[in-house]
Amino acid sequence: MMNEFDLIQNYFNWELTDPSVELGVGDDAALFNLPLGHQLVTSTDTLVEGIHFFKDASPGDIAYKSLAVNLSDIAAMGAVAKCFTLSLTLPKLDQQWLKQFSSSLKESSRLFNVNLIGGDTTKGPLNITITMMGSIEMDSSIKRSGARDKDDVYVTGDLGAAALCLKKINEGVKPNQNELTRLNRPVPRLELGSALKNVASSCIDISDGLEQDLSHILKSSEVGATIDTLKLPLDSSVTKYIKNTKDWSLPLCGGDDYELCFTAKKSKRDQIRVLSENLKIKVTKIGVINGSKELKINGYDGLSSSYQHF
Amino acid sequence: MMNEFDLIQNYFNWELTDPSVELGVGDDAALFNLPLGHQLVTSTDTLVEGIHFFKDASPGDIAYKSLAVNLSDIAAMGAVAKCFTLSLTLPKLDQQWLKQFSSSLKESSRLFNVNLIGGDTTKGPLNITITMMGSIEMDSSIKRSGARDKDDVYVTGDLGAAALCLKKINEGVKPNQNELTRLNRPVPRLELGSALKNVASSCIDISDGLEQDLSHILKSSEVGATIDTLKLPLDSSVTKYIKNTKDWSLPLCGGDDYELCFTAKKSKRDQIRVLSENLKIKVTKIGVINGSKELKINGYDGLSSSYQHF
Repeated sequence: MMNEFDLIQNYFNWELTDPSVELGVGDDAALFNLPLGHQLVTSTDTLVEGIHFFKDASPGDIAYKSLAVNLSDIAAMGAVAKCFTLSLTLPKLDQQWLKQFSSSLKESSRLFNVNLIGGDTTKGPLNITITMMGSIEMDSSIKRSGARDKDDVYVTGDLGAAALCLKKINEGVKPNQNELTRLNRPVPRLELGSALKNVASSCIDISDGLEQDLSHILKSSEVGATIDTLKLPLDSSVTKYIKNTKDWSLPLCGGDDYELCFTAKKSKRDQIRVLSENLKIKVTKIGVINGSKELKINGYDGLSSSYQHF
Repeated sequence: MMNEFDLIQNYFNWELTDPSVELGVGDDAALFNLPLGHQLVTSTDTLVEGIHFFKDASPGDIAYKSLAVNLSDIAAMGAVAKCFTLSLTLPKLDQQWLKQFSSSLKESSRLFNVNLIGGDTTKGPLNITITMMGSIEMDSSIKRSGARDKDDVYVTGDLGAAALCLKKINEGVKPNQNELTRLNRPVPRLELGSALKNVASSCIDISDGLEQDLSHILKSSEVGATIDTLKLPLDSSVTKYIKNTKDWSLPLCGGDDYELCFTAKKSKRDQIRVLSENLKIKVTKIGVINGSKELKINGYDGLSSSYQHF
């Protein structure tokens, strides 16, 4: 019978690609060296069956997304992701499942240049918790609390496609491949996040929905903002959906986008345009910060209904 | 209704006690400064209902143990624990449960001088994952791979009391308070672990049972060992149990002790005795490393039956 140690040896003990990891999987704890003058940046996110993914979700998609949602948090700080631990709770030792999960996690971690350095496997209802660690030069991180009066408000990419996909599945409508990719394979904005150091005044990843997550910036920064629905960058399927339904809650509150919402001084506009062009990532100005301590959304009179964890 | 943000605000946003934490709970990620010349030491452990604790376990005990088992891994590296993230998956928002869990976790984290710096809360079957981060001076950590021929083999504390408690509960026998404490409130050997830097040649925490965990040291170090059952330090209740049953598998394979097993050169004997006296922690020499690549246990001919995670 395969025990925990065989399981780790077979599926999760990969060659390290980062010389700053001194000790990875296989001791009581892992050892990692931060670059001189850098500080540790760390974040953790859990994915639970039936909440964050469907019961029949592919192990490869689950592995990819577990990593991506954590990387998105590191990106939102402007940091560079380095290594992660994985806590994997599994109902049973399903080798087929593990093979697919492990292979996708390995491939994804190579893609984003991060190393698995430790973890825990245990028996129980399926639960995947990743803790991502990264680093950033001292005093360079982009916090939620830095937005100031008259700053521009931006979002990356476009909004609502993942939420539209989820809505279709829940309603028994088959989503197209593009929509499925947006839900299952969100791309963390690591390069852009890192490039926004010393450019953005505040930043957050909008995993819970733009309306709720921008509100966190406003609260932390003790400011308000006005944004405009007509300026929101939308996927063409979302544009069509809104034309038919007038339902702006999808891109505003739908969540699962893993784009960045950030603020920056007006004087940074040229720099941000150049960054966007160089990295080939759409960046859209959707509004302006003000002193009101409220979020006003022109063209939207719906209720706040962003993602609630309970 | 309470949402995730209220939950974190009410139960998990404590005052930071460590100035090296620049940013704790409440942003996309936490920021932490390592002391100069130190490296990051990190470990993660998950506790699942029905596997690591009983369904009716007290939230306070669960919180304490979640922290202690992670601290034990940091102790086994000789490192100093600094801060941790908490991923808490809960079936429902039970305020009474949360209040007790949070209050015990806060108290325990103060006791061990570590700060909660981030986490995630989500809905699902009860699952508590903590990732502990600590630091240690470069080239000072105690790895599993350092045991050498003729080194002494030691364990801290005494063995088997937690396993005896678990056995009694499983058999419907009421354990006494001391036994319950040993099961529910293991004391991580942080001070001793740290003092063993540059003294021990290898170290592991024996959460899965001495026989299995010592075998990990032997495998990593490519050596063997002979230990002696008559030298094993036992709690008085375990001594009595073995007298009646001859069942040495309890202290050898029972697990859940969270003591340290370590090796050291003969020349370190005096130093280890002084450490043990100063820290008032029992340290017992139970055997010797040899070149055989086998673990021989004098006085025990039972099967290996240490804890299997699956």
